[in-house]
Amino acid sequence: MEGGSRRWRFASPNPAAAAAGEWSVRPYLLDLRGCLDEQGPRPVIPLSIGDPSSSLSFCTAPEAVEAVAAALRSGEFDGYASHDTDLAARRAVAEYLSCDLPYQLSPDDVLLTSGCTQAIETVMSVLGQPGANILLPRPGYPKHEAHAVFHNMEVRHYDLVPEKGWEVDLEAVEALADENTVAIVITNPNNPCGSVYTYEHLSKIAGTANRLGMLVIADEVYGHLVFGSTPFVPMGVFGETVPVLTLGAISKRWVVPGWRFGWIAICDPKHILKETKVFNSLRSFKMLTSDPATFIQGAIPHIMKNTNDEFFSKIIKLLKETAEICYSEIKETKCIICPQKPEGSFFMMVKLDLSQLSDISDDVDFCRKLAKEESVMLLPGTALGMENWLRITFASEPPKLKQGLERVKSFCQRHLSYGVPSQH
Amino acid sequence: MEGGSRRWRFASPNPAAAAAGEWSVRPYLLDLRGCLDEQGPRPVIPLSIGDPSSSLSFCTAPEAVEAVAAALRSGEFDGYASHDTDLAARRAVAEYLSCDLPYQLSPDDVLLTSGCTQAIETVMSVLGQPGANILLPRPGYPKHEAHAVFHNMEVRHYDLVPEKGWEVDLEAVEALADENTVAIVITNPNNPCGSVYTYEHLSKIAGTANRLGMLVIADEVYGHLVFGSTPFVPMGVFGETVPVLTLGAISKRWVVPGWRFGWIAICDPKHILKETKVFNSLRSFKMLTSDPATFIQGAIPHIMKNTNDEFFSKIIKLLKETAEICYSEIKETKCIICPQKPEGSFFMMVKLDLSQLSDISDDVDFCRKLAKEESVMLLPGTALGMENWLRITFASEPPKLKQGLERVKSFCQRHLSYGVPSQH
Repeated sequence: MEGGSRRWRFASPNPAAAAAGEWSVRPYLLDLRGCLDEQGPRPVIPLSIGDPSSSLSFCTAPEAVEAVAAALRSGEFDGYASHDTDLAARRAVAEYLSCDLPYQLSPDDVLLTSGCTQAIETVMSVLGQPGANILLPRPGYPKHEAHAVFHNMEVRHYDLVPEKGWEVDLEAVEALADENTVAIVITNPNNPCGSVYTYEHLSKIAGTANRLGMLVIADEVYGHLVFGSTPFVPMGVFGETVPVLTLGAISKRWVVPGWRFGWIAICDPKHILKETKVFNSLRSFKMLTSDPATFIQGAIPHIMKNTNDEFFSKIIKLLKETAEICYSEIKETKCIICPQKPEGSFFMMVKLDLSQLSDISDDVDFCRKLAKEESVMLLPGTALGMENWLRITFASEPPKLKQGLERVKSFCQRHLSYGVPSQH
Repeated sequence: MEGGSRRWRFASPNPAAAAAGEWSVRPYLLDLRGCLDEQGPRPVIPLSIGDPSSSLSFCTAPEAVEAVAAALRSGEFDGYASHDTDLAARRAVAEYLSCDLPYQLSPDDVLLTSGCTQAIETVMSVLGQPGANILLPRPGYPKHEAHAVFHNMEVRHYDLVPEKGWEVDLEAVEALADENTVAIVITNPNNPCGSVYTYEHLSKIAGTANRLGMLVIADEVYGHLVFGSTPFVPMGVFGETVPVLTLGAISKRWVVPGWRFGWIAICDPKHILKETKVFNSLRSFKMLTSDPATFIQGAIPHIMKNTNDEFFSKIIKLLKETAEICYSEIKETKCIICPQKPEGSFFMMVKLDLSQLSDISDDVDFCRKLAKEESVMLLPGTALGMENWLRITFASEPPKLKQGLERVKSFCQRHLSYGVPSQH
């Protein structure tokens, strides 16, 4: 029983934790980092993750910073959140979201979370159990898969259709669902596709979910970040048709993903989730887990009421400009096809035409060589369930974005097969 | 399939989430709140939870507030934590903890969590699986139970022995453990008992855990908060004997539970956890969950290096004084017995002598009537697995604490059965 030969009883950790860990973009990003030429003459241009907060143009609203600083300095928010603090923050979120809904959310319909990540964790914790399955989009955001898998759900993927502006393939949804399908996740505005669903399309999704008896989990962390012809409509608008759990955060709209403040909003005016115990289960489970920092909770009513509209307009204007740059640069890049001009979020999903490239085997190979030769980072579509596609983040300073995409263009030019189809 | 008669497929949420929700002190506290006489002439004195941050005497160190405010205002920590920010924070925690260890922790041995709560969640997520069991102390901290149960572990309770200064009943531990016992949780300094384990006792725990092949999870969130004759010795000191996962946070020592910054430290100089995959599983799982706010991470190196020793001494002096008040007041209260003067944490665990009380049926009844009649809140021991005991928090302003305990005394006096043993 001594030394290396002994048998420790904790030798095999939970296999579900390991399986969940497989669903992450981080290994891909770490791999790309390893490919970068550290001695290269040019600065690295990362167009791989959705966090523009380091760009000066995307810095958050000064009134938001002031609100948090004031809460911190007051000394009133160092402890666990009091009932009043928690209630005021939930009320602020309820009022913020209710502006876009045909009914009022109450503070009791809101749970506060440590960013949208904890909102996903909480919802999957409460819904997940062996035997249940959940419908997730492909391409998607792998944390949905990770937490669904960790909580013993079977994941079934429905496709987003590039030819139809990345709409949900509703026929596939009907075919995938069965009596053990508890929910469908939709992401709108969409990461990674940059699409924004119309009222009509969302209405169809709600009707389908109603017919199939499943809950809609609406990941709206990019809510309001739209700059095309389609306005943002929250899924909660269809709460009368089907119960909706809306996941959100201040992370993207206020450009503060590091502040870790998000929510779950229970958009269910018919109180179906109360009847089915999901509501109580969400609330009692949330009590066991960590809350957002109390002084951020304390600042939320001020942040939500006092953020200047000009701040939001500035960010939208900038995203419209960078999306335009991204789309037009990629259109000029021969071996990359963009099926849809982005209208929301920070992302564009594009397809590699490998037949035009001489020595690139797949999307991962493309991204690795691009990182090495051009010091530009893109996310391989494989990380999101779409082989030979790429995700480009355009939330970046316009000149830097342009420079990055010029490098992608010259990379492709250099690797073109000049009409000779590649063997790969 | 329409209206109320339809069968929704999400109707039965995860039963493990509901079972976990049962392990919480919150329903007890909410119940007590409901008992308070809102029209009562005297202010409520809550001696029920471990959060003194609202007391002026316990306010945090100004240098800690300044460090967070500076990080926030810099605008450099609004995004997801960069590799450098995360590394610097992990290094600061590793250095902070290594001061008290016979070996050096590296930044790779530290995971950052959103308070100690998320540290508990993460450890239970990675170790838990059907068939595994875990040894937890009674009395204990119910979040250990909640997350163990949620992650499908069987909970087996070992007793803390009041007659032996609340030491671990090691014979019971030997009897409870079997080949499926993955870990034992110890809390030191102890919540709720206020005890501090000696070097010798910790050494025996480590030896027992080694013999039984199980991991030690050391909840040291009250680390360094000791004011008796026993110094604080971290369990990690025995990392050569048995692998230790140390859970901690700045919540208690810096009196900022609302800042939500904690850690898991892997105290395992023989690298047994690396061999058994627990190490990698912890790290990859942590990547899927929410991090502490980035600007708090950014402030941590400053907080850990620059907090004045005088701040810590002031807090210890105050706790020594309030523990003394609590102990001597309770000694004068006839129907309450304190087996052990507290030497650490914020708490004292005391036994009700129901035979001396005329109309009190149990600890919950005692606390409810006390709340109603005296506007004082104590936590019933039942919430912590010990019927007819009470937990008293003494981290409070000395005059307020004294006043609260005087009210407890007069409550007991009023309910004394004057020698006639109660029927209960």
